[in-house]
Amino acid sequence: MTDRLVVIGGDAAGMSAAMQVRRRQPDREIVVLEKGRWTSYSACGIPYFVGGSVPEVDDLVARAPETFRDEHHIDVRLGHEARALDLDRRVVEAWDDEAGQTVEVGFDTLHIATGAAPLWPDLPGLDGPMVHAAQTLDHGLALQEALRSGARRVVVVGGGYIGLEMAEAFVQRACEVTLVEASDHLMPSLDGDVAAPLVDALGGLGVDVRVSTPLEAVEDGAVVAGGQRIPADLVVVGLGIRPRTELARDAGIALGVKGAIRVDRRQRTSAEGVWTAGDCCESFHMVAQAPVHIALGTVANKQGRVAGINMGGGYAAFPGVLGTAVTRVCSIEIGRTGLSGREADQHGFAYVEASVEGESRAGYLPERKKLTLKALAERGSGRLLGAQIVGQEGAAKRIDVLATAIQAGMAVDDVVELDLGYAPPFGPVWDPVHLVARRLLSELRQFT
Amino acid sequence: MTDRLVVIGGDAAGMSAAMQVRRRQPDREIVVLEKGRWTSYSACGIPYFVGGSVPEVDDLVARAPETFRDEHHIDVRLGHEARALDLDRRVVEAWDDEAGQTVEVGFDTLHIATGAAPLWPDLPGLDGPMVHAAQTLDHGLALQEALRSGARRVVVVGGGYIGLEMAEAFVQRACEVTLVEASDHLMPSLDGDVAAPLVDALGGLGVDVRVSTPLEAVEDGAVVAGGQRIPADLVVVGLGIRPRTELARDAGIALGVKGAIRVDRRQRTSAEGVWTAGDCCESFHMVAQAPVHIALGTVANKQGRVAGINMGGGYAAFPGVLGTAVTRVCSIEIGRTGLSGREADQHGFAYVEASVEGESRAGYLPERKKLTLKALAERGSGRLLGAQIVGQEGAAKRIDVLATAIQAGMAVDDVVELDLGYAPPFGPVWDPVHLVARRLLSELRQFT
Repeated sequence: MTDRLVVIGGDAAGMSAAMQVRRRQPDREIVVLEKGRWTSYSACGIPYFVGGSVPEVDDLVARAPETFRDEHHIDVRLGHEARALDLDRRVVEAWDDEAGQTVEVGFDTLHIATGAAPLWPDLPGLDGPMVHAAQTLDHGLALQEALRSGARRVVVVGGGYIGLEMAEAFVQRACEVTLVEASDHLMPSLDGDVAAPLVDALGGLGVDVRVSTPLEAVEDGAVVAGGQRIPADLVVVGLGIRPRTELARDAGIALGVKGAIRVDRRQRTSAEGVWTAGDCCESFHMVAQAPVHIALGTVANKQGRVAGINMGGGYAAFPGVLGTAVTRVCSIEIGRTGLSGREADQHGFAYVEASVEGESRAGYLPERKKLTLKALAERGSGRLLGAQIVGQEGAAKRIDVLATAIQAGMAVDDVVELDLGYAPPFGPVWDPVHLVARRLLSELRQFT
Repeated sequence: MTDRLVVIGGDAAGMSAAMQVRRRQPDREIVVLEKGRWTSYSACGIPYFVGGSVPEVDDLVARAPETFRDEHHIDVRLGHEARALDLDRRVVEAWDDEAGQTVEVGFDTLHIATGAAPLWPDLPGLDGPMVHAAQTLDHGLALQEALRSGARRVVVVGGGYIGLEMAEAFVQRACEVTLVEASDHLMPSLDGDVAAPLVDALGGLGVDVRVSTPLEAVEDGAVVAGGQRIPADLVVVGLGIRPRTELARDAGIALGVKGAIRVDRRQRTSAEGVWTAGDCCESFHMVAQAPVHIALGTVANKQGRVAGINMGGGYAAFPGVLGTAVTRVCSIEIGRTGLSGREADQHGFAYVEASVEGESRAGYLPERKKLTLKALAERGSGRLLGAQIVGQEGAAKRIDVLATAIQAGMAVDDVVELDLGYAPPFGPVWDPVHLVARRLLSELRQFT
């Protein structure tokens, strides 16, 4: 009996699943169809490649196709783009780039890891040659090429993670960088009060930051945004992504929020023997208790692992996401987890919020590093709902403590009593995490 | 009706309690008897004062006695050493240093925060003039004075937190430093395999580290340890502490583990209207599920707050400790939480353990920082029992994520699915916390 597994998409969500199956089933036939030229690469590393701190594009590849083929007997077929799915005949139709023809690949079990596509607004000039995305290694190479060809005036569209990291990358390459963001603050996934200092911080790096400045058009040699004309040789669009699910939809597989593939806790789709993971599928939000679409490398890896364990005959469940994310732009660190105030409102929570100015060293030591920590707790239950950090060195990864507390369903009075490590080089005796919890506790008392 | 509160001991455990009472009861009469000259100081900061990075001893004082008196109407009496307790008459007998006589101070409610005393082995020469502890601000001043008087050959006795931090301090003051430790590895609160690299690391700072070298005597101009004679102008003893509980014991208050005052979850002692907090009392160990004596500033502050809320008419409970602790010695960071292997054995746990070599940046970025993370999980339940980290910058405070997971009672498969922040400057996409949990999961499978 053969049970051939076909994986569509050779990045994190696809290959981590394939590897889990291989680990459990050394003889299982596994075929991977990847439309591009690479497998298992770090899209998150692209800004560091463009900025010059990662010298070669291959450095971003965790495992090359040959490694999968030679060491793990996984039949990786590059340049194969899946274009149609016949669930009755159990066949994928794929365009084979090299052969210049469509081939049929039969499967018993199918894993869909088609990822996401950059959001691309329908505005004049966005298909022009100087406009780029920053999502794949090919995009990274194209940006490098543009720099080599003399591009110096760069407009980055979108002030989220990718936008900020790309702005830093181009500053490092001595470009003149303008960042335009439609909303009134950078990092729209943070609340405005926490994100406010980022405009000045990016300004300090030499980035011309313009908030409340929506993109309107790209013209010859300029970007038009918020009624302003900004000269440009190169435009990088980082406006978020949408799940790439046409293939699944056309095959009749159920889609959910934002058009992402609907999944159960084992990563099964609505179709028998068809699984999915990564940027193309939904996740369950553990605080909102609702499906969401959050495209992050960590989630793709975890979901891929869970799907692979299940497809390999084991049992694993993916409990969901908190939307935890961190970044660093030069010396400024940013972290967030759980619900922001805006998200908590959307989901109908009644909550209190508190902010503290903390330090990542004891007050009496030199070289203190400052941070701002904001957190939200639900009225009634006192449950921690979310947190956001902006600060200097040592700030961002502190979000992991709050993420762990939220994932554990802790209430604020549990957080006050967390036994966290203390020594003067790492902060005050009451960690900022304790201080914000104490302040939330005071706020909650008004409602009890 | 007056309900006079007397607090014995004006450091963290005493003053945090006094402040909580004041916050709730603006008119309550509060008297603090402190035998020394300071209130609310950071004992953890003493190595940084001796090492020179904190210029003045007063910088280590969080709140001065005058602040408590003038701004918070707390009657702080310095130079008052409590020497006897009459629970029937509700009276403390205290030696008033300035007046040169014993005074009686009546109380309705009593809070005992007498702290701990350095462990002082009964060995020849330990009462000599060149032998010092490093526990109080007066000790810190005495060490400064010894340096000013020309001491250059320093022997530090004990390789725990205080020993390592003091060794670093004296290296920074250009001393010749020898560190002697009786057990076979530094940091006896860590397991030997994790702590092993510390000997070379301290050696690299110029410290002559000698493990398996128990102190035998102090002679004129030398320390004798492990049969070796080590020339010395100055000896610093950091062999741990014992709770200072003679006063409570003599008054008939119940003592528990290691002679520490027994408490309930509100920080009540066995005597009506008598409370306690800090280094003089027990804590409940949340993993071992048993009383322990762990003397740390974080615990003293938390217990003091809880005692104060309760004495002030509120309700708060102290859930217990994990023994989380961190330190940094130059570029080496150390963190631990929960049970070590040795402690888990002592408490009768059956467990698996796993170690990973992690990094605090993505593999493709320059300046990677290495760390070793070891963790333990209980067989059967899969519950995380403890973790230890040794590594470079960014290593130690990662222990807080594990401490939070342990405090929440998480099993290893919960930890694998934690939604932690990821970006290339902070580590690989699978955080070391995930990796060690995945390895523990494999280990646990052997037993299921």
